[in-house]
Amino acid sequence: MQIGINATHLRLPKTATEDEVLLEWQLEVNENSSVHGLIVQLPLDSIHKIDTEKVTNAVAPEKDVDGLTSINAGKLSRGDLGDCFIPCTPNGCMELIRQTGKYNKYHHLTVHFLFNSNSDIVISRSCVPKPIDRLAREVGLLSDEVELYGKTKAKVQLHIIKRLQKQPDGKYVVVTGITPTPLGEGKSTTTIGLVQALGAHMKLNVFACVRQPSQGPTFGIKGGAAGGGYSQVIPMEEFNLHLTGDIHAITAANNLVAAAIDARIFHESTQSDKALYNRLVPLSGEQRKFSPIQINRLKKLGIEKTDPSALTDEEITRFARLDIDPSSITWQRVLDTNDRFLRKITIGQSPTEKGYTREAQFDITVASEIMAVLALTSSLEDMRQRLAKMVVATSCSGEPITTEDLGVSGALTVLMKDAIKPNLMQTLEGTPVFVHAGPFANIAHGNSSILADKIALRLVGPEGFVVTEAGFGADIGMEKFFNIKCRYSGLRPHVVVLVATVRALKMHGGGPTVTAGMPLPKEYVEENLELLEKGCSNMRKQIENAQHFGVPVVVAVNAFKTDTEAELDLICDMAKAAGAFDAVRCFHWAEGGAGAVALGQAVQRACEAPSNFKFLYDLDLPIADKIRIIAQKIYGADDIQLLPDAQHKVELYTKQGFGSLPICMAKTHLSLSHEADKKGVPRGFILPIRDIRASVGAGFLYPLVGTMPTIPGLPTRPCFYDIDLDPETDQVNGLF
Amino acid sequence: MQIGINATHLRLPKTATEDEVLLEWQLEVNENSSVHGLIVQLPLDSIHKIDTEKVTNAVAPEKDVDGLTSINAGKLSRGDLGDCFIPCTPNGCMELIRQTGKYNKYHHLTVHFLFNSNSDIVISRSCVPKPIDRLAREVGLLSDEVELYGKTKAKVQLHIIKRLQKQPDGKYVVVTGITPTPLGEGKSTTTIGLVQALGAHMKLNVFACVRQPSQGPTFGIKGGAAGGGYSQVIPMEEFNLHLTGDIHAITAANNLVAAAIDARIFHESTQSDKALYNRLVPLSGEQRKFSPIQINRLKKLGIEKTDPSALTDEEITRFARLDIDPSSITWQRVLDTNDRFLRKITIGQSPTEKGYTREAQFDITVASEIMAVLALTSSLEDMRQRLAKMVVATSCSGEPITTEDLGVSGALTVLMKDAIKPNLMQTLEGTPVFVHAGPFANIAHGNSSILADKIALRLVGPEGFVVTEAGFGADIGMEKFFNIKCRYSGLRPHVVVLVATVRALKMHGGGPTVTAGMPLPKEYVEENLELLEKGCSNMRKQIENAQHFGVPVVVAVNAFKTDTEAELDLICDMAKAAGAFDAVRCFHWAEGGAGAVALGQAVQRACEAPSNFKFLYDLDLPIADKIRIIAQKIYGADDIQLLPDAQHKVELYTKQGFGSLPICMAKTHLSLSHEADKKGVPRGFILPIRDIRASVGAGFLYPLVGTMPTIPGLPTRPCFYDIDLDPETDQVNGLF
Repeated sequence: MQIGINATHLRLPKTATEDEVLLEWQLEVNENSSVHGLIVQLPLDSIHKIDTEKVTNAVAPEKDVDGLTSINAGKLSRGDLGDCFIPCTPNGCMELIRQTGKYNKYHHLTVHFLFNSNSDIVISRSCVPKPIDRLAREVGLLSDEVELYGKTKAKVQLHIIKRLQKQPDGKYVVVTGITPTPLGEGKSTTTIGLVQALGAHMKLNVFACVRQPSQGPTFGIKGGAAGGGYSQVIPMEEFNLHLTGDIHAITAANNLVAAAIDARIFHESTQSDKALYNRLVPLSGEQRKFSPIQINRLKKLGIEKTDPSALTDEEITRFARLDIDPSSITWQRVLDTNDRFLRKITIGQSPTEKGYTREAQFDITVASEIMAVLALTSSLEDMRQRLAKMVVATSCSGEPITTEDLGVSGALTVLMKDAIKPNLMQTLEGTPVFVHAGPFANIAHGNSSILADKIALRLVGPEGFVVTEAGFGADIGMEKFFNIKCRYSGLRPHVVVLVATVRALKMHGGGPTVTAGMPLPKEYVEENLELLEKGCSNMRKQIENAQHFGVPVVVAVNAFKTDTEAELDLICDMAKAAGAFDAVRCFHWAEGGAGAVALGQAVQRACEAPSNFKFLYDLDLPIADKIRIIAQKIYGADDIQLLPDAQHKVELYTKQGFGSLPICMAKTHLSLSHEADKKGVPRGFILPIRDIRASVGAGFLYPLVGTMPTIPGLPTRPCFYDIDLDPETDQVNGLF
Repeated sequence: MQIGINATHLRLPKTATEDEVLLEWQLEVNENSSVHGLIVQLPLDSIHKIDTEKVTNAVAPEKDVDGLTSINAGKLSRGDLGDCFIPCTPNGCMELIRQTGKYNKYHHLTVHFLFNSNSDIVISRSCVPKPIDRLAREVGLLSDEVELYGKTKAKVQLHIIKRLQKQPDGKYVVVTGITPTPLGEGKSTTTIGLVQALGAHMKLNVFACVRQPSQGPTFGIKGGAAGGGYSQVIPMEEFNLHLTGDIHAITAANNLVAAAIDARIFHESTQSDKALYNRLVPLSGEQRKFSPIQINRLKKLGIEKTDPSALTDEEITRFARLDIDPSSITWQRVLDTNDRFLRKITIGQSPTEKGYTREAQFDITVASEIMAVLALTSSLEDMRQRLAKMVVATSCSGEPITTEDLGVSGALTVLMKDAIKPNLMQTLEGTPVFVHAGPFANIAHGNSSILADKIALRLVGPEGFVVTEAGFGADIGMEKFFNIKCRYSGLRPHVVVLVATVRALKMHGGGPTVTAGMPLPKEYVEENLELLEKGCSNMRKQIENAQHFGVPVVVAVNAFKTDTEAELDLICDMAKAAGAFDAVRCFHWAEGGAGAVALGQAVQRACEAPSNFKFLYDLDLPIADKIRIIAQKIYGADDIQLLPDAQHKVELYTKQGFGSLPICMAKTHLSLSHEADKKGVPRGFILPIRDIRASVGAGFLYPLVGTMPTIPGLPTRPCFYDIDLDPETDQVNGLF
């Protein structure tokens, strides 16, 4: 029997023989009272060679539970498990059936035998994911709550919320990081590693909730974003590509709004009030009728009439003319492609548009306000309302023009009716993951969806854990997680996990510039305690930032193979001295969940610690004061400076009634300040606010600190050069 | 028991009592040897009121087959059918379980009890579709060949082709039409009505293969496109919206190519040959390596080297510089939105693009060459090759530049790996439908996918029928179906169904202009045999067009309620006189499949008639000759005239080696000539060819006869004003 075994994974010496591995399993399976059974999948070509007795005898007879499993390598290798087909794999894998938590649910935690490898996609596809309908049953979803999308993805219907409404929530953990290098410090990997540890190793009910990545960068510079190494969401190509079409739905919805804006301006420009009205409210048979969306607009205008013939000429004009000021349009078209040539364009140049040209731009789809709405909504009804009140422009007389005024709000809801359902996937170790929403972390709030977190918290139950990730460093993603996401969700986090790396801290200590695609300077691959100690100032500040919200912090030191013991110790000591509840080293990239068990235990303890959550600012404060509080308390600025455009917007939004929205700062993530090259803890600076925009539907104002790139470009040699499909095996090559 | 019954549907007098209906069923069920059982679903609130005995006793005991069914209204109303959950419905429905064909398959043909209604979406959602996994089993798909996408859609994996390779094909029927009015004459509705007749009423194995509609028009003018009345694909909102994301995948793939073209021109403009080469083939560790896609480009250039350091300076230049002539770019960006302001735009105006602006345009996604590739491909490997040889521009020295030269061909294949799998849905009467690919019918060939047709032909077996639809009138869609689609597929059609309407024929006879959105002039709603007889010239010519290919023609007269007996008779007589195999009236819009049984019987007979299929032209003829043959034989033109751009392209494409591709005419569908207002059978005209373009990957040249609109716009009051989602019931309102 030649099964490739990642012995580290099983906490055995690398030289372990096959018998030693089996022995380890025997102990694990027979002596752990939470293990109720075993399923073995073996390489197809080994069926006749295998010593089936050895496997069969390794497990005690009482471990056969509920008819779900029987220990029969021959039978099981043909994939026979009730009505649930398990394909035989080239690698083989083994599952323990456990009863976990207090909710009488079975979690099947797959432990895969893997060859060591350094390519994420090789690791990802070496595992055969369990059928997603099976995972759905394991986590307690009923079959009519699940919509399958192929064999490895499913959507969860929202009516589950009603069924679980009396179920108490689990523990809520947010993963954030210190100020990162441009390479990223492993927040996603840590999120996945942590749930693998809590679920597959500590036998707790768990869920990871992560963002859906934009497809653009997958083909540009960045590559995939499913975690990495032995802590990944699988299959990584499904995660990184279309998934279940949510981002595509947003592209369609967003661009319908954009088309409606320009078409409306065009039709208003070329028609009389009467002609416009006759077309907007046409005769159908013998009579005219307002659509419900038009009734909403009439109400907004204070016209309490429902008979189209009863409107006065003045009311007809007010109803039919949105009178959009083209220079005030804030709604952009979007594509999920890195297309730099669409950053600034002129539209309407065909003769059919009769000279109504204007400058416009495309953003990447995840920058759409509709993505932020998806992430912040709490129900279909709530989404319908948010999609209706998105402000796209201002009228010539200063009124905000909404998607409801354009008549498009219902169609947007229809386009988004499936996107609102969270997507279920799994980690390499078979624990459940919700992948749902992925708003930009600068001009939006950079957090996955409230709905996924809420459903997951109910599913895991009070002893279980939901781990969610906040984009960028703690000064941005975590601040927005607390002040925006938790404010709308009403959920209260138990623990902050702050990811730190030796590499990033050395950079903050004064190390040379780190550039994506370039080799790391030697300071980063050799021990340098001096740089590291100096750089810990950034970690200290980010710990303090979390403490502003009254939540305990566990520092996760994401270890790289070039890190030394002394370096890792130094960070842990400094973190604890700075007030972290605990600080532990993690090896989940190389070892999977087994490498993050210490982190899992620390998080579990921290959840029992006293916590006193509070927001950083009151919504009722003036806009400028809210911005100032964030700048001073979180970034360490002396003050803010509102430039003229920003000052104008403060007045406009206050007048329009949007002054009490929370603040979503659009600032570089590469420094605590507004200047990306200021590392460590910059001091003595004034934060300039160039402009302010409003995402009224999503529900926040976003001050622009500097210029935010909203659509990336392709480099000379994009990732796509390496990406291909093997038509023989259907395997995707070259994603990483 | 108050079940709404469409008595016409059951061929009973409209006044039939409940007992008469039951009696009809009793006869049907007990005396038909192909009926093996019955499933009854009843309205939930009738369970306790119903006389269950009456239903139970209506069916003989021997009709209980395979444990699949038992006649127990109480039990079944709770949705109990093995592991297959059937929800109880407000309307109730009944299914016969039949064993049909010779392949030992069960077709469950649902017959729905419907209230008469005139809104397509009301009819559509009044039926509860059977779970799609059950339909998949009924048509003979194995569970590992099916990927579910929710409860009503599924994708079929291509490896089924291998399993069915020895299975003989069924009968292949193409539905086309006379030259239509702008309102359309009901080809889609007839396609669905015909398969409902053949399947649900004549008990034959059937499949309809239809195009996926563009989402743009759903929110613009046209509304939905799932057939109509009682001949629809359900659920119509799923059919008309995202479906399983195929069109979205094309948007993503198409725009990745567009972004790659402009980014490449930009990077070539701003870098030396050496710098370009170093970036394209970067050092990875100690060495450089070509990616497989780059090796392909080297081969094309005749450079037989695999070591990057071995290239001469001249070879480096040839390899690294595509030297695209920006004025030659034929590849456009696409969106699936009716956005008229993107018809002509200027891109690259952001300072980051350093002044490299150019004029460009967006097309609607279904106009993308990638959609045509999807429709014409025969396997994953073939699609990979077609996606690689798409020509996007010409180099300054006159060489065609392909997606493979850009390095993007593998990524395109990865983006399209799921889109290539046909989508399974169902008709109102529960018969299977493949919805797959929807290329434009002017600048592309307007036919659904070859793969769906091929798989369906195997699944139905030799006694079964596959009905596929060709876009526009017979002069366009059918001509391209034969000369392009059948040429690539190798499939040979048995019968052409030519849809004709009284309305369109009167228009051809000289009736007033028919305009979408305007009431019909009285000529069209009152009997007028003179106009009609005159207009039959168009039908006669289109019958002749089908006969050029040696295939028998059955004329389907799609009856409207304003048509008179004399009018319908006249068309049938004229059609038979013109050489049609048969001509029959159809009432499938009002009656479902029952209204098209006469058509089904005629089609079945025509399939037994001698047929002698031949192409219209040889591929080896010069480009101009191929165009001339189509213009003269199909359109009735005296000759063609190649305008200067077209003449230039004839020379360019012949030189580049694309001269032997088939021809895909981009001509108005509203006339046999190039002028939309010339109705009937125009004579004595010269067809002007303005320009010619090449879709080399899809595999055709498309001569432009006039200007083709490639992205529609939104009217003053788009459809979206009426579209909304009811958050209580999740129902989509306002689609039609």
